[in-house]
Amino acid sequence: MADLIGLLAGVLTTIAFVPQLLKIYATKSGKDVSARMFVMFIAGVALWLVYGIMIRSLPVIIANLLTLGLAISIMALKVLYSRREASKR
Amino acid sequence: MADLIGLLAGVLTTIAFVPQLLKIYATKSGKDVSARMFVMFIAGVALWLVYGIMIRSLPVIIANLLTLGLAISIMALKVLYSRREASKR
Repeated sequence: MADLIGLLAGVLTTIAFVPQLLKIYATKSGKDVSARMFVMFIAGVALWLVYGIMIRSLPVIIANLLTLGLAISIMALKVLYSRREASKR
Repeated sequence: MADLIGLLAGVLTTIAFVPQLLKIYATKSGKDVSARMFVMFIAGVALWLVYGIMIRSLPVIIANLLTLGLAISIMALKVLYSRREASKR
């Protein structure tokens, strides 16, 4: 039962980043998204990944690998669109 | 060593939400922040909290309690400022 809840929790906190990625891509704007949040979050998720490898937990490795990819993509789009905005002015 | 990395990972992925909360509060705008992301993320973190209680892991409980508070605050401010924007029009 606990494993099932843990699994569902991991799925939710991972796929939560999909709508943020789609939103920033659709609106071409990430002004209100905090870059500091994503820098810290990416560093934290990378450490969770290292932790998962050290304790050899496949669910921790997979969840954090996916979250890492999503978080880096959101951060990259935010930086890209911010630069485009800046170059327009 | 793994515990230390796990602890640092937890601290980073928790405090990462502080700059997002401060940013949305300072700019009074959360337009680019995805509400769907935060609804799913809050549900996921709530389940992590239940999981932590079930496996009696104090670090999991504390980290997710803090993250839950931060994520709910960000969501609440986003909704508040969106309504203010809408009522101005």
